Amino acid sequence: MMTSRELIQLFNDTRTHTEHICSFLETEDYVVQPVVDVSPPKWHLGHTTWFFEEFVLKNNAPDYQIYDERYAYVFNSYYESAGDKVVRSDRGNLSRPTVSDVYSYRKHVTDALLKYLKKENPSEKILEVIELGCHHEKQHQELLLTDIKYIFGNNPLHPVYSEDFEENPIQDFPQEWLEVKEGVYEIGHNKSKDFCYDNELGFHKIYLHSYQISNKLVTNKEYLEFMADGGYLQVLLWHAEAWDWINLHEIRSPFYWHKVEGEWQQYTLKGLKPLNPDAPVTHLSYYEAFAYAQWKGMRLPTEFEWEVAQKNFEWGSRWEWTESAYSPYPFYTKEPGALGEYNGKFMVNQKVLRGGSVATARNHTRYTYRNFFHPHLRWQFTGLRLAK
Amino acid sequence: MMTSRELIQLFNDTRTHTEHICSFLETEDYVVQPVVDVSPPKWHLGHTTWFFEEFVLKNNAPDYQIYDERYAYVFNSYYESAGDKVVRSDRGNLSRPTVSDVYSYRKHVTDALLKYLKKENPSEKILEVIELGCHHEKQHQELLLTDIKYIFGNNPLHPVYSEDFEENPIQDFPQEWLEVKEGVYEIGHNKSKDFCYDNELGFHKIYLHSYQISNKLVTNKEYLEFMADGGYLQVLLWHAEAWDWINLHEIRSPFYWHKVEGEWQQYTLKGLKPLNPDAPVTHLSYYEAFAYAQWKGMRLPTEFEWEVAQKNFEWGSRWEWTESAYSPYPFYTKEPGALGEYNGKFMVNQKVLRGGSVATARNHTRYTYRNFFHPHLRWQFTGLRLAK
Amino acid sequence: MMTSRELIQLFNDTRTHTEHICSFLETEDYVVQPVVDVSPPKWHLGHTTWFFEEFVLKNNAPDYQIYDERYAYVFNSYYESAGDKVVRSDRGNLSRPTVSDVYSYRKHVTDALLKYLKKENPSEKILEVIELGCHHEKQHQELLLTDIKYIFGNNPLHPVYSEDFEENPIQDFPQEWLEVKEGVYEIGHNKSKDFCYDNELGFHKIYLHSYQISNKLVTNKEYLEFMADGGYLQVLLWHAEAWDWINLHEIRSPFYWHKVEGEWQQYTLKGLKPLNPDAPVTHLSYYEAFAYAQWKGMRLPTEFEWEVAQKNFEWGSRWEWTESAYSPYPFYTKEPGALGEYNGKFMVNQKVLRGGSVATARNHTRYTYRNFFHPHLRWQFTGLRLAK
Amino acid sequence: MMTSRELIQLFNDTRTHTEHICSFLETEDYVVQPVVDVSPPKWHLGHTTWFFEEFVLKNNAPDYQIYDERYAYVFNSYYESAGDKVVRSDRGNLSRPTVSDVYSYRKHVTDALLKYLKKENPSEKILEVIELGCHHEKQHQELLLTDIKYIFGNNPLHPVYSEDFEENPIQDFPQEWLEVKEGVYEIGHNKSKDFCYDNELGFHKIYLHSYQISNKLVTNKEYLEFMADGGYLQVLLWHAEAWDWINLHEIRSPFYWHKVEGEWQQYTLKGLKPLNPDAPVTHLSYYEAFAYAQWKGMRLPTEFEWEVAQKNFEWGSRWEWTESAYSPYPFYTKEPGALGEYNGKFMVNQKVLRGGSVATARNHTRYTYRNFFHPHLRWQFTGLRLAK
Repeated sequence: MMTSRELIQLFNDTRTHTEHICSFLETEDYVVQPVVDVSPPKWHLGHTTWFFEEFVLKNNAPDYQIYDERYAYVFNSYYESAGDKVVRSDRGNLSRPTVSDVYSYRKHVTDALLKYLKKENPSEKILEVIELGCHHEKQHQELLLTDIKYIFGNNPLHPVYSEDFEENPIQDFPQEWLEVKEGVYEIGHNKSKDFCYDNELGFHKIYLHSYQISNKLVTNKEYLEFMADGGYLQVLLWHAEAWDWINLHEIRSPFYWHKVEGEWQQYTLKGLKPLNPDAPVTHLSYYEAFAYAQWKGMRLPTEFEWEVAQKNFEWGSRWEWTESAYSPYPFYTKEPGALGEYNGKFMVNQKVLRGGSVATARNHTRYTYRNFFHPHLRWQFTGLRLAK
Repeated sequence: MMTSRELIQLFNDTRTHTEHICSFLETEDYVVQPVVDVSPPKWHLGHTTWFFEEFVLKNNAPDYQIYDERYAYVFNSYYESAGDKVVRSDRGNLSRPTVSDVYSYRKHVTDALLKYLKKENPSEKILEVIELGCHHEKQHQELLLTDIKYIFGNNPLHPVYSEDFEENPIQDFPQEWLEVKEGVYEIGHNKSKDFCYDNELGFHKIYLHSYQISNKLVTNKEYLEFMADGGYLQVLLWHAEAWDWINLHEIRSPFYWHKVEGEWQQYTLKGLKPLNPDAPVTHLSYYEAFAYAQWKGMRLPTEFEWEVAQKNFEWGSRWEWTESAYSPYPFYTKEPGALGEYNGKFMVNQKVLRGGSVATARNHTRYTYRNFFHPHLRWQFTGLRLAK
Repeated sequence: MMTSRELIQLFNDTRTHTEHICSFLETEDYVVQPVVDVSPPKWHLGHTTWFFEEFVLKNNAPDYQIYDERYAYVFNSYYESAGDKVVRSDRGNLSRPTVSDVYSYRKHVTDALLKYLKKENPSEKILEVIELGCHHEKQHQELLLTDIKYIFGNNPLHPVYSEDFEENPIQDFPQEWLEVKEGVYEIGHNKSKDFCYDNELGFHKIYLHSYQISNKLVTNKEYLEFMADGGYLQVLLWHAEAWDWINLHEIRSPFYWHKVEGEWQQYTLKGLKPLNPDAPVTHLSYYEAFAYAQWKGMRLPTEFEWEVAQKNFEWGSRWEWTESAYSPYPFYTKEPGALGEYNGKFMVNQKVLRGGSVATARNHTRYTYRNFFHPHLRWQFTGLRLAK
Repeated sequence: MMTSRELIQLFNDTRTHTEHICSFLETEDYVVQPVVDVSPPKWHLGHTTWFFEEFVLKNNAPDYQIYDERYAYVFNSYYESAGDKVVRSDRGNLSRPTVSDVYSYRKHVTDALLKYLKKENPSEKILEVIELGCHHEKQHQELLLTDIKYIFGNNPLHPVYSEDFEENPIQDFPQEWLEVKEGVYEIGHNKSKDFCYDNELGFHKIYLHSYQISNKLVTNKEYLEFMADGGYLQVLLWHAEAWDWINLHEIRSPFYWHKVEGEWQQYTLKGLKPLNPDAPVTHLSYYEAFAYAQWKGMRLPTEFEWEVAQKNFEWGSRWEWTESAYSPYPFYTKEPGALGEYNGKFMVNQKVLRGGSVATARNHTRYTYRNFFHPHLRWQFTGLRLAK
């Protein structure tokens, strides 16, 4: 467990960084929700604040005044047991509270939590919830970046977020196959002093047959070969539901790709740019990652194969789709109460992604981290690594 | 036809008044589109501006510089023959252009049009298009008010638009039945000097059997009697599709009514207020207006009955649903080209409303004016008057 | 009013003819419902039977035994006030009662009604309901033919219904324009001894400006010219909602037309046949009829123009779309109770069709008859006649 | 591999048994498709026949005459690479081919295949496809029973399929917990002489931590306790998507349960019967099975835990939901060509079920058999067994 002093530092850094991410926005950019999976930036600002108010301050901080009773309704996300909430698809329909109101709300809660941390002597249990709240906010920092990318990338004017945000780091080394021997391996987080989510527990054994895994992510150039070979038109490469999905939505390339006068361009947070063939391919669905692997005569690794091999390759620029469905580990137990809704209730019909991305907050990911999304989603910085 | 000087006055007043309506808004309020029928206020500001740029300046004003080529795509509404456009349901997904950009666009076009009107000698045909553009903008002034009401009225914080906007004027006189004799009557606009829309032409004869029409609109108090008698539960009062619709959407009262601690309240542009029993009922669908009339053993007037009798009663606070479907008058012809899309292409599956409302722009309505909406829509200031 | 003897004759003929229409079917053909507007033939057989049981026998015939209490639930169509019913879209999901059961049910009710008519002395009111029931069944005879055509015409095997059913009679005379003078005309059914529906009452006056109307229906050859000129691609010819509809459904020709090896064929009740250029075009929506008229620089007649002129032209092979919305006549009143649901509750968002079709039962239509359908529907034998 | 003689026996038995299942139906029962997951019985009869025609006879049997070229379009299910096909939701819209035609088609193919098997000397590869075709038809035998149950169970008349079909065998012994020790285990089918599907291959090792598994299925009585405790109303027991799903569809009990005058009844293939408290609960979704286990403070076994323990308990009356997502085994490879579509393309977003049910064909299931369905489906004879 962190010391109170470390926690104050973490809390301060986290709150400040969230606001730094938003400092590049115009007021209007905070408001819109162009698709249900994307939330308005002001909602992220309010929701991460509500988390501390609801789960820490409300019932623990002496004399804490709730900023506005109605905000719980506006800023609850999915905690069914914490009361009613705005329907998710309505988040972008709310012009009020204004951005300025939301920043006031943030300040009110930030100040109150710091005062509480400094003046009172919170129990270990509460310190843990505050630490969870910081990691929760770091997750929303990543969502802020990917949601802003969606908001800008689907605007016909293609605005620039920041000229300094580099989302396409090159893996400048030769591709090799790393071999892993058959045997019993240990998986998961050995709950020590360091923070982890409940879905990384408990530490347990699995059996792996021998396999090979690539030291590099698949690049745009490689993915273009798949496209050139008619990969999107070969039914036998695709899952049944994937085939229906790509045809219904006429998907023929990764998300954010635009063919402009015969050349592929990619919308990035720096604006519309020529596609870099050497960058790792990104913004594809699990379906597309799977079809690409099929086309190569290979496969995606399981999350266990990834975790066992990861110390031998670089990772962190793309969330890597794995073949593993998101399921509970053998000794998994949920927290009691609303915080038990954090992870467990999503453990069906989703795929595990491992690693991290250019948008992931600093110190937020780790090799046991289990991210998860529905197989058709593409707005995160997803990518893939082959196994065989 | 107006003189050029009168037209400059009209144009200036119209442009200024649109911006006055928006002066009560926060930046965030300009952006959202909570339902497809409602457009974001900044879209109205841009669209009414695009109208002058597209149909007047672009092809007529010497040296006119288009403000931004991409705005035509953003601000076209339904003129299919004027090029591609943002899908209507996406208007609220666009954070850019910003509100400030849109005001700059307005100023650019306002200035250019004034310069064009003052310096050049526009043909009568072009003056007519400019006059049409002013009336078009007045229509959007009404939509701005009703769309703002929707945006605020569906926000859980129920913001106030303006304490000065009185939307519930009382008809403070006794109810009487006005008698009209059987015979041939003349209907429509006798295209003289004054402006009218093409759908009010041409002047023609119709035959009416004798009828009676009320001098008053139906009030909240009267509508509450219908509700108290289970009007929403009596199937025989409703059209087949109306019955399905009220049950699907669980409609049991007019729009914007809220039962708070046993008392009816109404969201108004002044905020949430106790329902005034003497005010004319408003925000109901044609279906509800029809069912109410059935329940009274009476009926709605046709648009012809309304037009013939109107000089004998007060009107203008509510758009009054009529029994008439929106169809072309006998001598109706469409303008050639895109402006022909203004009215004619909506002449199916809509109902005519007559009169005007508390939100209608000054000098915009007249006794031949034919407004039209789909029978289920309720976000306009609609009301009803009985006939028998 | 008919004599009891005439009514027995009418009843017997009607019941027998319904079964004759079905005599060309296989058992399987009685069961399916390929689209919600089409009902399974066995449902029509049962529903027309239930009508007599529900509205005549149940409450009037002494000692009448209800055949099966559960059938009311299965065979009620839209009489909300007559109890619960199978959801319309579920009619094709019911394999039971079997066809054989339904014929037994028919026999039970037919016999009971004849016995009741012969032995008792029904009041005039009840005789009227029985007469209405016969006309109701005649309407379903037409629906049986059009629904069977839909069932067969949308089956990839394109079965033949009957080699003897001629649906394309030629109008073998030159096209002429009939002139009608301006003035006051009388419209509607002068409720005498003859049967009519409530929507044809009451007899009333209207005013018509002078107009011309064609003595012929538009032919396939003429419609092909519209298609060849890109009629389906010219946005200015179409209503706004029509344009969306034809593009969503990729409609580029009338229903039942198939281009087979470069030649137009038409599915008919005789099977797939080469399109006859001289036959009146059929199976088109109001939207298409309207767009064709626009393209010709003409218009559709109103239902009043049609009624006033009809004695000077042949009609009866196609239901002719008119420009008139389906609205109540000035003196219209609904029956009390469930039978009041027969016509009135559909008087919104539908268009009036006049005339009759090759599928209309003998002695069923008349020049005051007001048929009505939603403007997008095409499975009836619809057609059009121009006016100007 | 089977001998040719054994295969003839298997083929004959399978074809005959399919027709026996249908021998209890009326013609009408063969035709309907009340929901997209359920196919009309005549479609099953035709599809299982088409399988042999398409994958065996067409390209291998000398002089084989295709029965009707158009049937491939009608009876293909999901083999995208084998040509176009009727959209799945349209299967119930086809009255033709008639039931009698389909039986003729069956006879034509059965006879041709027997002739081919007896006269020619098919390669081992082809014999394997024929064996696969028999197992394929056995799968459809189970679907026939569950689809017939759906067709009858959702008909308001609740017809009886057969008084002899016992679907509720009692497990008449005490509940015990079977212990399994931690260690490495072998999983999957050791492809020997016996038939298995490709998804059961290859034989491989997994690691299990120690666990306990029940020797009995959960009973109706036990499930009623969950319901009585408000299990369907406690949000923390449910997956997020499950919670939305049960509320959208107002699911408050297993499928086919009806509360009749205060008592629970269950529709069975014998008709509507009082619920037997001692029978294993059935017709529930994975979501409900999971929520029940949560409520007990336990969990569902993984498919590996089930497979390792299965020799110590009885199974076969219910398909048992497991916690395992349907994923490829380590050495899984797809067949080349259309038969490769048999299993692999469904390996996403589905859950594995183990065991077999009262409707499973004789000799069809085995302890390595991996059945799979989407987590919300309830029309199969599903059930659950607890682990901890």
